[in-house]
Amino acid sequence: MKAYRDPIRLIPVLFLGVIALGTLLLSLPIATADGTPTPILTALFTSTSAVAVTGLIVVDTATYWSPFGQGVILLLFQIGGFGIMTAATLFGLMAGRGFGLRDRMATQVERSRLDVGDARSVLKLVLVITLVVEAIVAVILTARLYVAYDHTFGEALWHGVFHSVSAFNNAGFSSYSDSVMGYQTDAVVLVPIMIAVIITALGFPVMQDLREHRLTWGRWSLHSKITVAGTGILLAIGFASVLAMEWNNPDTLGPMGLGSKLLNSAFHSVMPRTAGFNSLDVGSFEDETLMTNYLLMFIGGGSAGTAGGIKITTFAVLVAIVLSEIARRRDAGLFGRRFGHAIERQALTVVSLAGALIFSATAFLSMTTPLPFEDLLFEAISAFSTVGLSTGVTGELPPSGQLVIIALMFIGRVGTITVATALALGAAPQKFRYPEENPIVG
Amino acid sequence: MKAYRDPIRLIPVLFLGVIALGTLLLSLPIATADGTPTPILTALFTSTSAVAVTGLIVVDTATYWSPFGQGVILLLFQIGGFGIMTAATLFGLMAGRGFGLRDRMATQVERSRLDVGDARSVLKLVLVITLVVEAIVAVILTARLYVAYDHTFGEALWHGVFHSVSAFNNAGFSSYSDSVMGYQTDAVVLVPIMIAVIITALGFPVMQDLREHRLTWGRWSLHSKITVAGTGILLAIGFASVLAMEWNNPDTLGPMGLGSKLLNSAFHSVMPRTAGFNSLDVGSFEDETLMTNYLLMFIGGGSAGTAGGIKITTFAVLVAIVLSEIARRRDAGLFGRRFGHAIERQALTVVSLAGALIFSATAFLSMTTPLPFEDLLFEAISAFSTVGLSTGVTGELPPSGQLVIIALMFIGRVGTITVATALALGAAPQKFRYPEENPIVG
Ligand SMILES: [K+]
Ligand SMILES: [K+]
Repeated sequence: MKAYRDPIRLIPVLFLGVIALGTLLLSLPIATADGTPTPILTALFTSTSAVAVTGLIVVDTATYWSPFGQGVILLLFQIGGFGIMTAATLFGLMAGRGFGLRDRMATQVERSRLDVGDARSVLKLVLVITLVVEAIVAVILTARLYVAYDHTFGEALWHGVFHSVSAFNNAGFSSYSDSVMGYQTDAVVLVPIMIAVIITALGFPVMQDLREHRLTWGRWSLHSKITVAGTGILLAIGFASVLAMEWNNPDTLGPMGLGSKLLNSAFHSVMPRTAGFNSLDVGSFEDETLMTNYLLMFIGGGSAGTAGGIKITTFAVLVAIVLSEIARRRDAGLFGRRFGHAIERQALTVVSLAGALIFSATAFLSMTTPLPFEDLLFEAISAFSTVGLSTGVTGELPPSGQLVIIALMFIGRVGTITVATALALGAAPQKFRYPEENPIVG
Repeated sequence: MKAYRDPIRLIPVLFLGVIALGTLLLSLPIATADGTPTPILTALFTSTSAVAVTGLIVVDTATYWSPFGQGVILLLFQIGGFGIMTAATLFGLMAGRGFGLRDRMATQVERSRLDVGDARSVLKLVLVITLVVEAIVAVILTARLYVAYDHTFGEALWHGVFHSVSAFNNAGFSSYSDSVMGYQTDAVVLVPIMIAVIITALGFPVMQDLREHRLTWGRWSLHSKITVAGTGILLAIGFASVLAMEWNNPDTLGPMGLGSKLLNSAFHSVMPRTAGFNSLDVGSFEDETLMTNYLLMFIGGGSAGTAGGIKITTFAVLVAIVLSEIARRRDAGLFGRRFGHAIERQALTVVSLAGALIFSATAFLSMTTPLPFEDLLFEAISAFSTVGLSTGVTGELPPSGQLVIIALMFIGRVGTITVATALALGAAPQKFRYPEENPIVG
């Protein structure tokens, strides 16, 4: 574990290996409902979407795949989610990002070596949290589906476990053809899913802080404060915008009573960040709701968790810089702390690369398909941020477009961890500096 | 001139005054071709578009307005262009941005006082450059229009002067209904316009450097090096993309010979940054050409000139930061110089505010009109960056949409100078600093 740069290169290799294995298994005739072998591109798309915990699909999970196929998908997103959470945390530790297990990250990024005890402790904690949350949600969902709907116990158990694991890993896959739209008036189904998604989307460092310091705000790290406060703000924005903009939409909230309107607005404030279930038909959303979703999906959730996107803290650092510049303050910061120069540049780099990637992908899709621009932009953000929501164009993409989405999902999930870790390792030592000179900007 | 903050507030007031006067004059019956008074919103839109040197129009300049009306428009964009160039330069000087007249901007922004000699020297130089370039271009255009086309001398002179002044001020207004599409095979008309636009879009500080140091690259300021190199790169990208993507488009380059294909690709590499004439029908552009145009328009031209957009240097600073982060270098910089922390944050602030404004405006337009998203995004960027190109939707906007475009043009032109100057004045003195703590980003 001394050569900490090689493990960084190991992450993409490991993920590619799992995706390849998944592709192979999904290509087998036994994986499909009608027993015919699956085209390689479809298998690759589904395997990548599962391992990258995205949830975009080109074939219907419920009807196209056999129980074996669905089981493979379940396993892939469980491995993907667990792998992402542990990899991000372990490499974060190596990069000296304290996460509460060690001292808080100081001005200069320390190159602390990771000892085996730390690694074991992280793996154990992630495993425990995963099993406990998944088990609780699975029990609630199974009971509800068995009691209140005409499911056999086996069916209830299968759908309960599938949705529980999918929710905890922010995977967005559903074992129903219409995701959870069939339960849009049932809070007992939707609320546990929402809670699982919110917890896991906070990311491991925040869970760790919560475990150590409970709700004692003053003892939380700056990272946890920003992530939790940001989550609250984004949920409020999402809730208010869906409620206001879809209130009269006959294809979404329109026909519902007040209770269901509130429930489904809450559900769809959680899902763009970046779980990807839908209780409403996203393809019927008003343009203005899609706009808010662009932003929510792009920002995503907390660092070092199963949520995708550029991450709440990244966005918060940029907003703080802009606000401090406008207020003509010398330092940018939040909650009585100032940010270091290095973290500001890292945040800028993450956002710029993400923006450039999404813009290029959307441009390519727009050139090669006749599909509407706003739907393709939605699809590209959804893929990069591993959200999994779609206005319904995924299945209409040509092979080249599917490959672009596959690349976006992989880069969005695996590339961002790798890049963030590499950046956090800090600059190479450098004695010579050029003289400073500044151009005029703006 | 000691209280340098009040003059900053003076810029918007002065521009608003000129716009109001222009609106009044354009509302008069004498201003229209058929002698009827113009609705106030149309007059306001046209006046703002002219003063902000944008060139977006809701009525056809050539047929709707009388010679008096067209003269008012010409005067408005001449005043607007001159006012912007001098205001940006003078306030830049006040903010200690050297511009070659004083010493180069140092690490800390100096609060140098502007003396009257500097101000007079700037005004004089801007005036001389304006008159010389406009006169040369006007003479060439007039001669060509008189000799090669069936214009009377008076007509040739009028169109020649109008296009010369419009080109130098990056105004984008044309005294022809189809802009310069009637001259798409005539290099003698298009090339002088292109050259005038390229020169003025470099901005005053670069012109000043060119005047002092000619082509001695080593003696140029970092600002001039970045602006000139960036201009070259953006022109090359624009040229290559129009040529490649429109080559077979039957409504644009398709039917042309090789020479005209090259000429019009060159012309349309210059115009999105941010002159706004068109020799091709922008509404017939392929989607992929529009994408490149989004980027070229958003970046725009050089600082402290008549060009709009976030400016080449702003974009270059951000790109340099991202590249240095990826290469794990300690400093970001270009051409053997490193940037200071303050300029990096200023650049980030300018881009973030511009992006947020364009996103919000596009979202609003998309909610309130049935027009295609990509056309509205194009329109919003064109307005903010004061480009003036349109896919043809300007005239179809409802009053609320026209007001949004008016606001974008004003903020894009006047707001950006004000904000950039305020930022460059630097942070208020501040003794207390919060302790540093960094969240995890990405
Ligand atoms: K997802
Ligand atoms: K213009």
